Amino acid sequence: MNPFANIKARFQLPSGMIYLDGNSLGPVIKGVEKTAARVIEAEWGQKLIGAWNGADWINLPSRVGDQIAPLIGAQPGSVMVGDSLSIKVYQAVAAALRQRPERRVILSDTGNFPTDLYITSGLLSRLGNDYELKLVAPAAIADSLDESVAAMLLTEVDYRTGRRHDMAELTSRAHAVGALALWDLAHSAGAFPVQVSESRVDFAFGCTYKYLNGGPGAPGFIYVSPDLIDEIDPALCGWMGHEAPFEFSTAYRSAGGTGRMRVGTPPVIAMSILETALEIWQGVNLELVREQSVLLSEAFIERVESECSDLLLVSPRNPDQRGSQVSFSHPQGYAVMQALIDQAVVGDFREPDIIRFGFTPLYLDLEEVIQAADILAAIVNENSWDQARFKNRGLVT
Amino acid sequence: MNPFANIKARFQLPSGMIYLDGNSLGPVIKGVEKTAARVIEAEWGQKLIGAWNGADWINLPSRVGDQIAPLIGAQPGSVMVGDSLSIKVYQAVAAALRQRPERRVILSDTGNFPTDLYITSGLLSRLGNDYELKLVAPAAIADSLDESVAAMLLTEVDYRTGRRHDMAELTSRAHAVGALALWDLAHSAGAFPVQVSESRVDFAFGCTYKYLNGGPGAPGFIYVSPDLIDEIDPALCGWMGHEAPFEFSTAYRSAGGTGRMRVGTPPVIAMSILETALEIWQGVNLELVREQSVLLSEAFIERVESECSDLLLVSPRNPDQRGSQVSFSHPQGYAVMQALIDQAVVGDFREPDIIRFGFTPLYLDLEEVIQAADILAAIVNENSWDQARFKNRGLVT
Repeated sequence: MNPFANIKARFQLPSGMIYLDGNSLGPVIKGVEKTAARVIEAEWGQKLIGAWNGADWINLPSRVGDQIAPLIGAQPGSVMVGDSLSIKVYQAVAAALRQRPERRVILSDTGNFPTDLYITSGLLSRLGNDYELKLVAPAAIADSLDESVAAMLLTEVDYRTGRRHDMAELTSRAHAVGALALWDLAHSAGAFPVQVSESRVDFAFGCTYKYLNGGPGAPGFIYVSPDLIDEIDPALCGWMGHEAPFEFSTAYRSAGGTGRMRVGTPPVIAMSILETALEIWQGVNLELVREQSVLLSEAFIERVESECSDLLLVSPRNPDQRGSQVSFSHPQGYAVMQALIDQAVVGDFREPDIIRFGFTPLYLDLEEVIQAADILAAIVNENSWDQARFKNRGLVT
Repeated sequence: MNPFANIKARFQLPSGMIYLDGNSLGPVIKGVEKTAARVIEAEWGQKLIGAWNGADWINLPSRVGDQIAPLIGAQPGSVMVGDSLSIKVYQAVAAALRQRPERRVILSDTGNFPTDLYITSGLLSRLGNDYELKLVAPAAIADSLDESVAAMLLTEVDYRTGRRHDMAELTSRAHAVGALALWDLAHSAGAFPVQVSESRVDFAFGCTYKYLNGGPGAPGFIYVSPDLIDEIDPALCGWMGHEAPFEFSTAYRSAGGTGRMRVGTPPVIAMSILETALEIWQGVNLELVREQSVLLSEAFIERVESECSDLLLVSPRNPDQRGSQVSFSHPQGYAVMQALIDQAVVGDFREPDIIRFGFTPLYLDLEEVIQAADILAAIVNENSWDQARFKNRGLVT
């Protein structure tokens, strides 16, 4: 029995497709097309400029932030939506460095998602030669924390392997050496319960187009600990983060609270779609989502491994050490994934040889997972993998 | 005769409203609601992750940039769309400073839009105490250029007064002292012909929700001179600006050309709406738009001044020195604007006492402009302006 059958009915899923890629791009939730039409026709179309107040567009970033807050264990008012995840990483790292002005190291791991690393090294390169982005293996993070580290920057769930860091433990270790703890929740928010407040996380950020189903390129979000926010000096001082934007003063004064993490004019249509998509979480028990995610992923691994010996599990075998995805490696991983997609089982490929599958219990049944495993095993077992047949190319994470 | 009557029919304008605020938020162009529905249902809904390639979402930022390029006199491939105007200002100023590493001053004027100033001072505050954002009166820019100036940062058209800088002349003056020329085109693009290439502008940026009608919070754009782009070291090194994002390398290598000005995952729905909105410019003669804009604004000024002596023109009287807006001051400007809006004539108010009116020939007739002037004059002439009746508040620029 699928405990989320009623919720699954609210998703618009292509008929016949088994979609194991909700960790790249979540599907459409029914009703978002009506939201887009309403915002375009009734708000923008009829109220025009008056809709900023008349349809309360101006408060969308905090209002949608408050929808995300309970999903990551954050207090109301501590999450702001806007821009992209990359921009939110920049804001967090820049603010963290400002909080630890005497320190020069950002510590991260080689499993972090590239944009987090690129954004950070771009920022550090402008601050001076003595700044360093130090990358170590994921398992070496705890032992690499020392008093040179201004901030530990980690993605909780590795986008390739699904390996999950212990957020509370590593945050505590970071704090023990006086470093701040920054967490990328791209593969966490909506995937399982997250407790940023209880874990004493300083900054967290994520995207909303994966497990939160906000649509392609939907805005990012940022959480700042209420203990820190009033000390934060924003690096990206946009006019919407001003204390009184409509005063049009030439001098910047940051808004109170998370208001200062706003930058430019918010993307109203995209945020309104996200607002509708997030309504689905009302009443959803994230503990049950996690339980079901483990059930589905364990069933998938067991079925694949029982039918096929040519796929190597690269995710941790212990589900407690995984997020909500499972990855295997295969020398012809790209070709295997293309063959799967041809049979309407959609996961994705990551360099160099990883095929990954996301488990999203809100719209995925056990029967589909078993069927996907059977099709995968058959493809791997039945085909001779001629390298030349397939040209390598990527899909967006 | 309105030479754009056929184009006006493609706008969805609220019946009975005279909209003189297209310089804040352009109206809906018919068909964008169908674009939103198509992207949501046929692309996101049916193709899911496969739409990044299958619906060519991945190239939206450059494709839409190429639609904007001819409107600002830029070569194909030199404009990239994304993020917000504030973020694009940050990218431009940061890149300009990198090009003039020995210089410490950004020169701007007191009429610049606040977000340009806020973003710049936030950036400079992180680079060291010897950096300075120097603000002078708009008329003093040319005389304030010297060899300390890394970049001149100006908005071509003043958001309050409509006063227009001479882009070619000031750019040439900036270059004469070795400074770069950065232009904010928020109130220029789509308002009149702009020649960034011919004027030898180094960086330009703008928003797309005013004269380009892209919708509330639609993405920003950035132009970088083809002579400079390959030397640019981006400050915001997002994964979509990487030479090969799907390699998922831990080290950043910037993409060729303007690709490096991309940051995070692009907002697909908003960009697709913008793409449709920009189709209206095909075949539009911007010289004729300008001619008609001058005709409408001159008629407005003449009518207002002939009927009413209590409004002071704060825009330059010479149309060659204006953009496509006209502003008056009145001690009770906010209340006057509210009374106008109550009569379905929509402009907006800017602190401290300015009422401003945007002229957008694509969807505005001479008859409407005359009618608006008559209503405005009647309001100013007939009312006793009791200060206590009106509470001051702002609308988004």
